[in-house]
Amino acid sequence: MTHARRMIEANPTPAPVDAATLAECIEACFDCAQTCTACADACLGEQPPNHLSRCIRLDLDCADLCEAAGRVLSRQTAFEPEMARAVLLACAWSCRACGDECERHARDMDMEHCRLCAEACRRCEAACNNVLSAMGS
Amino acid sequence: MTHARRMIEANPTPAPVDAATLAECIEACFDCAQTCTACADACLGEQPPNHLSRCIRLDLDCADLCEAAGRVLSRQTAFEPEMARAVLLACAWSCRACGDECERHARDMDMEHCRLCAEACRRCEAACNNVLSAMGS
Amino acid sequence: MTHARRMIEANPTPAPVDAATLAECIEACFDCAQTCTACADACLGEQPPNHLSRCIRLDLDCADLCEAAGRVLSRQTAFEPEMARAVLLACAWSCRACGDECERHARDMDMEHCRLCAEACRRCEAACNNVLSAMGS
Amino acid sequence: MTHARRMIEANPTPAPVDAATLAECIEACFDCAQTCTACADACLGEQPPNHLSRCIRLDLDCADLCEAAGRVLSRQTAFEPEMARAVLLACAWSCRACGDECERHARDMDMEHCRLCAEACRRCEAACNNVLSAMGS
Repeated sequence: MTHARRMIEANPTPAPVDAATLAECIEACFDCAQTCTACADACLGEQPPNHLSRCIRLDLDCADLCEAAGRVLSRQTAFEPEMARAVLLACAWSCRACGDECERHARDMDMEHCRLCAEACRRCEAACNNVLSAMGS
Repeated sequence: MTHARRMIEANPTPAPVDAATLAECIEACFDCAQTCTACADACLGEQPPNHLSRCIRLDLDCADLCEAAGRVLSRQTAFEPEMARAVLLACAWSCRACGDECERHARDMDMEHCRLCAEACRRCEAACNNVLSAMGS
Repeated sequence: MTHARRMIEANPTPAPVDAATLAECIEACFDCAQTCTACADACLGEQPPNHLSRCIRLDLDCADLCEAAGRVLSRQTAFEPEMARAVLLACAWSCRACGDECERHARDMDMEHCRLCAEACRRCEAACNNVLSAMGS
Repeated sequence: MTHARRMIEANPTPAPVDAATLAECIEACFDCAQTCTACADACLGEQPPNHLSRCIRLDLDCADLCEAAGRVLSRQTAFEPEMARAVLLACAWSCRACGDECERHARDMDMEHCRLCAEACRRCEAACNNVLSAMGS
């Protein structure tokens, strides 16, 4: 249970897109940032972690971009559509790359943490694309 | 719906405290980081925002500390109890200070974003203290 | 004095672009993240801060994007040019928007913190564009 | 060349401790956050990285705590000594743990990135302790 949706509606400045679409994206960004941070750590604890170095790197990048996107989208004052668009594109890109890599490890090595992380990445990528569509860009 | 609990259980390294207590704290940290970011923005949009400068400052600090705590607690490899303890103390402290300030604005000015933020801060402060207790420190 | 340049050369994976260009960008990103964080706070302390709400918002976004870009560029393992490109474009965009806003306050209200912040934003925007050029995109 | 010192002096709210001591700490926090991020990546690229999993974990924690400390200390409005104290203690702790680990790898395996990272951690730990002393705590 998060506070994202109610915070959007309590803000004195109206949201740039409908509250449900925006809240879903903010929640997905923060959940994906957490899941990618945890997946990087779980990969690091696997023996041996060698073959997971690309996965760890993408997890770390994806966590950083999801966090930046989640923070930018949490702000409604003086909203800049172009700024939002640039960060959503970067976030969606990192979610796709990280989701693809995790999906491969989930499938080929039956790694549950990568399966869960791919799920969080797919949800976040879709949510970013939904906000981009709603913004008409 | 977050992935925190299942990620804890999918990590090859056992969690330092029981999974339910840890997951609740990680979720509360990320939710509080988001809520404080949104509350700082909502305060900034109030007219006039002057009297809210302390609230905005505490919101920003609290968001940064909740995020750092949420990330540190998401890692189970080579867990350091003393590190966790230091970051949980800092996070609990910022949640108390920010929660007190927001509660005052919720009560005196009927600000809904501050009421919601105080709620997120209280939940996160309690969750940090629960992990500290579970760690036996 | 930072460690960015020497860390690039000590990494077992070669840098994606020449070390001097990359180090300049990483340093500019971290410096701009710090300067924007400080400028948001300085604006918040001005009396009254009303007219600075857009500046504060852009400062906060710019700090988050510079930090994400600085972290992504600090990683050389399994480097993804498309990821780097997306985050550099978002970072350069936020630096331009924030730099323009700060420059206006520096000029019209003689605000020194905005003048310094505009300088950090301009340097970071140029450094991001230099890495984009060096990557051939 | 960073803007930290001049930003402290351009803030309408006086700094909580003398500007030189504060600027040195802010710069050391941001430099250490960058260096630890780069060291985690360099360790990840070593073959094999197995024995470096503890180092990577401490690097990631230290980057997160240095960044949180650097941001909190960059704010002078409504400064809270207790908040600053808690985050400085957590940051100094992580710098000591990470510096010790990196120093070991620098000595035993002649790893230059760990030698540089230990240097950044030592500088940051000392700078945090100097601010704690200047605050009289």
